[in-house]
Amino acid sequence: MSRIVSVETRDVRFPTSRQLDGSDAMNPDPDYSAAYLTVRTDHGDGLTGDAFVFTIGRGNDLQTAAVELVASGLVGADVEELLDDMGGTWRTLVYDSQYRWLGPEKGVMHMAIGAVVNALWDLKAKRAGLPLWRLLASLTPEELVALVDFRYLTDALTPDEALAILRSAEPGRAQREADLVRDGYPAYTTTPGWLGYSDEKLVRLAKEAVSAGFEQIKLKVGDNLQDDIRRMALARETVGPDIRIAVDANQRWDVDEVAPWIAELAPYGVAWVEEPTSPDDILGHAEIARRIAPVPVATGEHVANRVIFKQMLQAGSLSVLQLDATRVAGVNENIAILLLAAKFDIPVCPHAGGVGLCEAVQHLSMFDVVAVSGSTKGRTIEFADHLHEHFVTPARLQGGRYVAPQAPGGGMELLAESLEQHLYPDGPVWQEAAQ
Amino acid sequence: MSRIVSVETRDVRFPTSRQLDGSDAMNPDPDYSAAYLTVRTDHGDGLTGDAFVFTIGRGNDLQTAAVELVASGLVGADVEELLDDMGGTWRTLVYDSQYRWLGPEKGVMHMAIGAVVNALWDLKAKRAGLPLWRLLASLTPEELVALVDFRYLTDALTPDEALAILRSAEPGRAQREADLVRDGYPAYTTTPGWLGYSDEKLVRLAKEAVSAGFEQIKLKVGDNLQDDIRRMALARETVGPDIRIAVDANQRWDVDEVAPWIAELAPYGVAWVEEPTSPDDILGHAEIARRIAPVPVATGEHVANRVIFKQMLQAGSLSVLQLDATRVAGVNENIAILLLAAKFDIPVCPHAGGVGLCEAVQHLSMFDVVAVSGSTKGRTIEFADHLHEHFVTPARLQGGRYVAPQAPGGGMELLAESLEQHLYPDGPVWQEAAQ
Repeated sequence: MSRIVSVETRDVRFPTSRQLDGSDAMNPDPDYSAAYLTVRTDHGDGLTGDAFVFTIGRGNDLQTAAVELVASGLVGADVEELLDDMGGTWRTLVYDSQYRWLGPEKGVMHMAIGAVVNALWDLKAKRAGLPLWRLLASLTPEELVALVDFRYLTDALTPDEALAILRSAEPGRAQREADLVRDGYPAYTTTPGWLGYSDEKLVRLAKEAVSAGFEQIKLKVGDNLQDDIRRMALARETVGPDIRIAVDANQRWDVDEVAPWIAELAPYGVAWVEEPTSPDDILGHAEIARRIAPVPVATGEHVANRVIFKQMLQAGSLSVLQLDATRVAGVNENIAILLLAAKFDIPVCPHAGGVGLCEAVQHLSMFDVVAVSGSTKGRTIEFADHLHEHFVTPARLQGGRYVAPQAPGGGMELLAESLEQHLYPDGPVWQEAAQ
Repeated sequence: MSRIVSVETRDVRFPTSRQLDGSDAMNPDPDYSAAYLTVRTDHGDGLTGDAFVFTIGRGNDLQTAAVELVASGLVGADVEELLDDMGGTWRTLVYDSQYRWLGPEKGVMHMAIGAVVNALWDLKAKRAGLPLWRLLASLTPEELVALVDFRYLTDALTPDEALAILRSAEPGRAQREADLVRDGYPAYTTTPGWLGYSDEKLVRLAKEAVSAGFEQIKLKVGDNLQDDIRRMALARETVGPDIRIAVDANQRWDVDEVAPWIAELAPYGVAWVEEPTSPDDILGHAEIARRIAPVPVATGEHVANRVIFKQMLQAGSLSVLQLDATRVAGVNENIAILLLAAKFDIPVCPHAGGVGLCEAVQHLSMFDVVAVSGSTKGRTIEFADHLHEHFVTPARLQGGRYVAPQAPGGGMELLAESLEQHLYPDGPVWQEAAQ
């Protein structure tokens, strides 16, 4: 038996705004940041649980304080008890009634719980000597169902229905795992399309994306229609007719603004329209989906929890579900979301434009193809080519596809040196900038 | 001209859990708390802007840190510029793109913005020498529309429609204000119904409520059906057939659980069913509303923002809208919510079970009857008989109705001594408890 002896949180920020990496119609100058958590135990193995909440700069200190608040409650806890019943652990964290008032199940507090849950999964996977996706895919349908909290979901998905979905995916697990290890998982790239990039940079990076084997790219849109038409035409001319081009408005529009805008871009071929409006607007997304059909709606990176996703699936708000590794309450809630998507036969294409999100979400999609949906059809993981060098086990791509990670853990551990360098505001990267 | 010279935040908690005041099916032991803000200027008038976020204990430190983070950005700002354009001030606070990532527009960060907005309104009302409700009711329809951000609302409510609503309420303003000052505003009481109270205490407090002139009481339910039936029968026997009894489940149920439970209570006469399920479940509430009709659904105290309220009105999720003074981004967002409710002809009955919420929400309802909906029909403000003695201008009731406050300000200012006594964890109330 071992105990948690300390939790260390760090406010880590990368100065991405200097190159306008990550710029879009609502977020002109993000500094990609991590409210970072390390859980340490008194076990002799030296293993840590590492995870974080992704933010875009200001406020990362508050998010770090929230992670600290939640995580500090675990100091002294029996590690095996926590890890052997991750379903119970999740419920204990999410249903603390006083903390819950601060959401409920949304925003800073919910994301903080997500970081703690993800750090525990990281530790559990490292102890098992398995990458997280493989650990999850090795669990029985009954064990997986026990990880999910079905409160507020049962009108759309019952535990029995979830069990049936998982059981029907059991027969082909070994074959799909072998295929995945051999072929990797489809990816698309957002690298060419940030709104702050010049036309010349867009064209150059789009060419590179095609050469690298990507079959889909994504452009940020929504600030100026004429600019969007010009950039879309340029991108289409550059990549040719066979590469899919998605567009992403990052919540810029009201419901009635979307269809006319998309009508101007659709002739160039639009793979999907991402985050057209408020991530809380279930009915608005459903109305938009009807109006721009057959162009699909994609959303999810800012969807606060499984209850909103449930309704988006019930209402027909989306054709592509973009879960995020650090927006909801961690791996357990994302398993619930994968099961909901499978029930409604909607493909999951995770959000990964940020620091460390590629490293994290690949595990969820790979678990999905092996043990939940059983398919990569219509599915692709976002890839943004930033900051991977700071991770202990960086995401690897080959021929425009994610290579299945083999290293133990959840993938979110930052290198010790990168943590030190980017500590905010005292790390060397920020001290130099201040001079 | 004057400038903001300091913002002071304080973590203030009241040990309400010792008597189980405020206990319900999801919140067994709340300590009513305030993440409290005081804004000071260099104007010679000595006036401060005071407001807070209401929480129920643990995490109030984090909420206070969030208020500090947002408010500290105002130090040095020109007070008149802020107060003369409260619509612009609201947008500047809500659309800070990096802070917005932490919601967006929900949870800890959004509530923190709400406290800052409310503190500025308090200062503005004190400077005008008016209670907040009267200040708001003195603005022209055009000035009121300029306070509202219509982003994400225009598919349900346009600025022109809002203007029409406000203009049609202009003619009777003076008469309704006179009526309000003479008669007060209808109230109901939650005091008898906390889940942790004994049957004897329930009966005694229900009797007192009737004697005090209240025409509606509320019982907490949802934990145990047999207990609920017994308490409902007792309450009905005690208050007689003419007093309305609402029930409040505080999010305890899944969608399919509600109708059978309510069928057991309905014979005793149920005024409304409050928070039957997740506050995010727009479609779930709509389905519940259809199933339990004609018993009305009430919700809103945990609704994160105007976009969720918009959809609840579009979908028919509620018949009673229960806005909260400190859950959304302050007075401006609550004006948007009052306008949405007026557009859909749904009565607003604010949530006030907490510390200082009675003091705050009365201003919103009184503004509503004078200048927005123009009616008190079907409307009543919650009253919970706790902690009023700690406020500079405590809410006053007479014959079961709120007396229109005449003191300048928004009503949320705590007495200096109460602030000191209840500081957490160093104030005397908590130091004594720790001994």
